[in-house]
This record gives sequence, structure tokens and C-alpha cells, in this order.
Amino acid sequence: MSRTRIHNLSISLDGFGAGEGQSLETPMGHAGERLHEWMFATGFGASLIGAESGSEGVDDAMARRHEEGIGAEIMGANKFGPPGWQDDPEWRGWWGETPPFHTPTFVLTHRPWPPLEMAGGTTFHFLDAGPAQALEVAREAAGGLDVRIGGGASVARDFIAAGLVDDIHVVVVPIVLGRGSRLWDGLEAIERDYDVEAVSTASGVTHLTMTRR
Amino acid sequence: MSRTRIHNLSISLDGFGAGEGQSLETPMGHAGERLHEWMFATGFGASLIGAESGSEGVDDAMARRHEEGIGAEIMGANKFGPPGWQDDPEWRGWWGETPPFHTPTFVLTHRPWPPLEMAGGTTFHFLDAGPAQALEVAREAAGGLDVRIGGGASVARDFIAAGLVDDIHVVVVPIVLGRGSRLWDGLEAIERDYDVEAVSTASGVTHLTMTRR
Repeated sequence: MSRTRIHNLSISLDGFGAGEGQSLETPMGHAGERLHEWMFATGFGASLIGAESGSEGVDDAMARRHEEGIGAEIMGANKFGPPGWQDDPEWRGWWGETPPFHTPTFVLTHRPWPPLEMAGGTTFHFLDAGPAQALEVAREAAGGLDVRIGGGASVARDFIAAGLVDDIHVVVVPIVLGRGSRLWDGLEAIERDYDVEAVSTASGVTHLTMTRR
Repeated sequence: MSRTRIHNLSISLDGFGAGEGQSLETPMGHAGERLHEWMFATGFGASLIGAESGSEGVDDAMARRHEEGIGAEIMGANKFGPPGWQDDPEWRGWWGETPPFHTPTFVLTHRPWPPLEMAGGTTFHFLDAGPAQALEVAREAAGGLDVRIGGGASVARDFIAAGLVDDIHVVVVPIVLGRGSRLWDGLEAIERDYDVEAVSTASGVTHLTMTRR
């Protein structure tokens, strides 16, 4: 049974999944890389940034779950590029010619483009659709594998609020961002629908795993 | 050196230290007892509610820190009673004739009362004062021991924002409250002033310990 999953969604203590002021120079806004340092310190994260090696403990094991059994991703417009990327015909995403998705990847935008075929198995498709409809399209493309909701925080929130997500992995990073895009807004009592586990690790983060009942 | 400390401040994943709609019947608002179940399951918490026994692990050890070396407490008006308690001359706090503070306890209110001497060493004093001034008075009363900021969340936030708190113990409970009184608002980047430790326990909560550098 194909599941819908969220992985490595890093938030601050106050629940922000990205900072304010996202731009070409500051993709995560004023948060900078602080929400993702834990991940780049792992073997999995090191491979993403071309570093030689990284840790191999719980942080790494959890980070690697991002890949396993995924047949398609859905992401928000703000994950694909800085505000206004739709007006830049040269834009091909943040990740160079070989993005780390390796599956059909659906970008939600009110101004869709034709598909972009990249190296390494990633094709970006652009969809002007709500969560349920987008998930239907992505599920079809996933060929029986799972669909990952790739974020950012507001897209993750929309899919969770719509009751569409089976597995949620949130990483709470011990910083207070103060402003940005909040994950938990509108999700009151969501824990009732999930089995919840919280595990802190030596890096200082806490892995929150929510599995739909 | 007398320190200023916060203990057992329980918040939801979305950062609320109490729910909405606090009243005589619902002291924690719509949160009910869910933020404090972890504590009442410990030996320390059991003794507070007259239960026979409780757990003796990390949750209990952390909960007991609430008492050690404290010479005075400062609390907000909303911790002392339901909205409007100032108009009820019979009100003597939530805790009966022997409150669990056993020290001078300063209640911040814009409508101060004369002191209330209770059994067991607690005397409630009522102060119309800002954080720095209240702390000065409480420090004096603490006789060289530490001062605890007893909450609620908004009072804790005011003292932290004013740079007055040396040790902060927050307990993150894996529920999403959605509304209420937020701890982290206005505390952007506060982690830079503290050494931060996060430790999850078998009960599902995460103990966040912040020690001023």
C-alpha cells in the first residue's frame, strides 16, 4: 500500500520550518543553514553537499529514511526557487543539473511550466492543484511506491491538515527563530490521529516521528 | 550566588504553556491536564496530588529540581487564580491551606492585596511591579537561596526576555494545542545566551535545559 510521507522536516523550538525573507541569496531566510546543520553532519547529508564523511548514528539513519521506497515527491513553489522564479526562464531549481530527487517531482504553483527533465531521474512537473488532487497525480506517477511531501512547512501543514499524510518525521532544532513559516498552525489536536515518538540525539535535535493510527 | 530559575514549564509542540479559556473550572484552559500528565506520573508529582507512588527515572529527577535550593517564587496573576480573583475576598489560591511552595511567594498583579499567610511556610505577597523590580524584592526575601519564576508562560517569557533567568527547564509535551499562551514569542535567538540540552524520555516528553553562559 503506497503511503504518503514527510521526512527531515526541520523546525525551530517555536515551530518555524524556514526563516523570513527567503531569496536567491538566502533560500532559508534569516534561519540560514541552522535548521539543517544536524543533517549535513550525517553521512547522508555529507553526500548531498559533496563532503567526505559524516556521522552514522540515529541522525543519519533517520535522514536516510528520506529516500527509501519513494516514487515521487510533491513540493511547494518556495522550495523550488526564490520568489518570482516563474518569471525566470533560465531557472532550473536550486540543485544544479542533477537534483537529489531521482523521481518525478511535482512543484505546486499557480503558474505552471512545462515539465523539466533533469539528469539522474528527476523530472520536475508543475501543478496548479490542491493537496488531494496533487497527491492523486503523484501517486499515479510513483508506480506503487510511496509519495514524499517535500515541504516547505506550509505545504507540509496543508497536506497534514487535509488528513493525507501517513508518516511524519519532524526534527526539532533547539533554536528560537522568532518568525518565518510555522508548521503547527491549524493542526490543533493532530496528535490524536498518530502514534507519536520523540527521541533526542547527541547532536541536540529531537526526532519526532508520527505514524498514522 | 543566588540564581533565577524556571522548572517544569510544560509546553506543547507548538509552544503553548496553557490553553485558551482559563477559568475556575478549567485552570489550564482547553489544555486540561495534558501538559502535566508526565509530572503527575512521577514520584514527585504523585506526592503533590496525594497519589501513592510514581516513577523514579529522569522525569522524576527533573521534576524534583523544582524544589531544591529555592528561597522564593514569583508567579503571574493567572497562576494564582482564575480571571477576576482580585474581586473575591475569599480566594486563597488553587492549592488549599497548605500550598506546595513553602517560601515567600510573590504574585504579580496590578491590583495587589495585603499578604496572605498560609500553612507550611508559604506566604503570598502581591506585587504590582515589572520583572526586574519584582526579582529584586524576591531575591531579598529568598535569604541567599535561588528565586524560581513559577510561570505561567507569559510571565516566564517576560523574565527571560529581560535577561533575568539563569536556568530554564522546559518540558515539551507531544501534543498540538493550537491556541493559548505562547512561551517563545519575542525570544528570537535566545539560545545564543544559553547552553542548551535536549533529552527525551520514555514518557514521550523532551526535557529542554538551558543554562546561561
